[in-house]
Amino acid sequence: MARVRPLSGFPELTPRDRVVEARILSTLREVFGLHGFGEIETRAVEPIERLAGDSEASKEIYVLQRLNADGDSDAKVGLHFDLTVPFARYVEENQGALQFPFRRWQMQKVWRGERPQEGRFREFYQADIDIVARETLPEHLEAEVAIVMARALRRLPIPSVTMHVNNRALVEGFYRGVGIDDVAGALRSVDKLDKIGPDGVRAELAAQGVSETAADAALELARISSADSSFASAVEDLWETTVKVDDVSGAQDQLARGIASLATLVDTVNAAVPGTAVADLRIARGLDYYTGSVYETFMDGHEAFGSICSGGRYDSLVAGGGFPGVGMSIGVSRLVALLLSAGLASATRGVPSAVLVAVTEEESRRASNAIADRLRARGIPCEVAPSASKFGKQIQHADRRGIPFVWFPAEDGDGQVKDIRSGDQVEADADIWAPPAGDLWPEVVGSDAH
Amino acid sequence: MARVRPLSGFPELTPRDRVVEARILSTLREVFGLHGFGEIETRAVEPIERLAGDSEASKEIYVLQRLNADGDSDAKVGLHFDLTVPFARYVEENQGALQFPFRRWQMQKVWRGERPQEGRFREFYQADIDIVARETLPEHLEAEVAIVMARALRRLPIPSVTMHVNNRALVEGFYRGVGIDDVAGALRSVDKLDKIGPDGVRAELAAQGVSETAADAALELARISSADSSFASAVEDLWETTVKVDDVSGAQDQLARGIASLATLVDTVNAAVPGTAVADLRIARGLDYYTGSVYETFMDGHEAFGSICSGGRYDSLVAGGGFPGVGMSIGVSRLVALLLSAGLASATRGVPSAVLVAVTEEESRRASNAIADRLRARGIPCEVAPSASKFGKQIQHADRRGIPFVWFPAEDGDGQVKDIRSGDQVEADADIWAPPAGDLWPEVVGSDAH
Repeated sequence: MARVRPLSGFPELTPRDRVVEARILSTLREVFGLHGFGEIETRAVEPIERLAGDSEASKEIYVLQRLNADGDSDAKVGLHFDLTVPFARYVEENQGALQFPFRRWQMQKVWRGERPQEGRFREFYQADIDIVARETLPEHLEAEVAIVMARALRRLPIPSVTMHVNNRALVEGFYRGVGIDDVAGALRSVDKLDKIGPDGVRAELAAQGVSETAADAALELARISSADSSFASAVEDLWETTVKVDDVSGAQDQLARGIASLATLVDTVNAAVPGTAVADLRIARGLDYYTGSVYETFMDGHEAFGSICSGGRYDSLVAGGGFPGVGMSIGVSRLVALLLSAGLASATRGVPSAVLVAVTEEESRRASNAIADRLRARGIPCEVAPSASKFGKQIQHADRRGIPFVWFPAEDGDGQVKDIRSGDQVEADADIWAPPAGDLWPEVVGSDAH
Repeated sequence: MARVRPLSGFPELTPRDRVVEARILSTLREVFGLHGFGEIETRAVEPIERLAGDSEASKEIYVLQRLNADGDSDAKVGLHFDLTVPFARYVEENQGALQFPFRRWQMQKVWRGERPQEGRFREFYQADIDIVARETLPEHLEAEVAIVMARALRRLPIPSVTMHVNNRALVEGFYRGVGIDDVAGALRSVDKLDKIGPDGVRAELAAQGVSETAADAALELARISSADSSFASAVEDLWETTVKVDDVSGAQDQLARGIASLATLVDTVNAAVPGTAVADLRIARGLDYYTGSVYETFMDGHEAFGSICSGGRYDSLVAGGGFPGVGMSIGVSRLVALLLSAGLASATRGVPSAVLVAVTEEESRRASNAIADRLRARGIPCEVAPSASKFGKQIQHADRRGIPFVWFPAEDGDGQVKDIRSGDQVEADADIWAPPAGDLWPEVVGSDAH
């Protein structure tokens, strides 16, 4: 048997850290459910031809091969690298059975066969919500998805967040108006503003054939932001003073539509979840298929970590057109890794048990079991000591496991229960006694930043 | 883009059927937690040399290959085919950080690259619990694991179950006493009793060099069963009347230990969960590494489906020895598929929303959102109509989504709420009204067999 070694890119959590991750997943599940999103879970694999494409992620596919492939005509499949590709396929496959607009959440692991390097995960959880329509997607759903995610993030044991939003129509109208033809290419360059700086962006745009004036205008646009709809007049002022090309059909109308849509989005989100949304005209998102609102979400004080929850509106979920939708995605494993490593969140214990019921002697184990069962019947997680060793040893076992209470059964009555942290010990009745609410199940303690 | 086709062996559930599966997973989670089992989740992959072995499952490994493998020295890995191999590796890797006896549950998907055929899953959920010790595993934990699983299964929306238990020491002592040397080989043959019948088993045993007398004795032993410890005298009687070989050291002691252990197990499990356990001396379990109690669990009336929850006690979890433990595993996806296809369980609806809040006109959407938020604040899942179409159409939308209530906002007061199944409509206050408890979240309705 090979020596046991961790595999690079496949981190595993301790039971205590898994409590943090599981709590995040269950909190998201609850908030999504309260907003009418149902769950689907797709298979881990997709046909290779569906996974392959132009995006970075699609170059990192893990292909599956049966060890004992016996020549039968298995379809060639790979592990999904996100939840969008499988969701699109699921909607296409089940469109006859689904009701639209279809609202779903999905939390699963995804895999990326990246080169191994520090901090890159090859296996990680994503949590996605999307609403897809059959023909027309009403604009108010762009605000709704942002609101649901903002509420979900506020319920997590994390610092407060700010959601930076932009609108593709706004940017596209503006870019086209100033003579940038390859809007997607320009967006990809502007998206690197943080990494390569304004001069780097200018150089890239020049290489794409964008004029100096137009590049300056694009960089000016990217400087505009506001926590309300006041960005609109800044954009309009910039538009007025910028050299525009002629004969670009509808650029100004597209710009105006984008401004109106973004203004509504910011105001609607902030009315529902005050202080969350900022119109930020530098937000580009790398992916080409967004056509309306785009979102990136940063933890306050941890902006350098990058966006923890991103997404946008798209015109067609499936290749070939159709199914316009809007969605956002949280990179859960990456977020959990940050929370744990930065000490921003931790679990009060790694075991579910609130109580260890001691065993006086093996012959009386059944009495200890009976007390444990009476506690469980009232929803109190507990376990019975594995051996009837000296009470000091049994207390030590509880302490090492992180169990806060030890119950000592007595021959007359149920006995006594001891809080091994404080040393307090009281007579107790197994049909009445309960631990303080905060000790019942493991709690996840977050930073107090919000 | 390729036409969308289901992949053989990778079934996917509708949102409504996923409610059933998710409820089963969450019920197991709760029962395991109440009994002090903590969660771990292991990575999906293991090094090939850890996965490869003699078992059937290890011949069905899916090997992973990076599509753009660039010559870097990646370890060769495959998807895990069960949760035991990764658990053993996890314990070995983290032994310094874990407290023993270590109690864990684990519910994850596993993959088996089987030949595609009807009813065989290539991707499915397993749910495992195990307790492993560092040196000695007390026998009472063999009963505990069975009790926890019996309780968990009783909480599921499934027919009642019977747990058939046996003891490897009992069988081994008996077999050795009657001159069967290859105990594992004989067990594998007896395990096929249902499939190949007594004559088939006799033929296989003869081929292994087992004498006719010994084969008859093994088959006689397999006929013994009892719902209490009365099996013990039947075994002792058979032992008395059977021709035994000499010079088999300790066979009788081993048999006696096994009988005592099995008697305690049956009585302890039935005292905790009445009517659950049956001592059934034909239960063999295919796997060699079990050394004490073995368990197989059948749904009453659906015995032909095979065991839904199996396991046993083993002397060493890791190759090279050490870490004795006991565990059981539920094949969740297979169970869910049976429940759904046999109509034994179903969800009352596929969407979480109990209420669709109607929208009178787009201008008043904010008022509808406000009512929805007041309901959500009290834990009532709901959604707002996607468009301000005629109320008839909005009711139809709710009906198609499976949402039982539609809320009609009014200009004065909160409006009225209609149960669209009965047609009852009442004035309601969004801070007071609640759906009946059975309508709050989707419910899973099981068969009434228990």
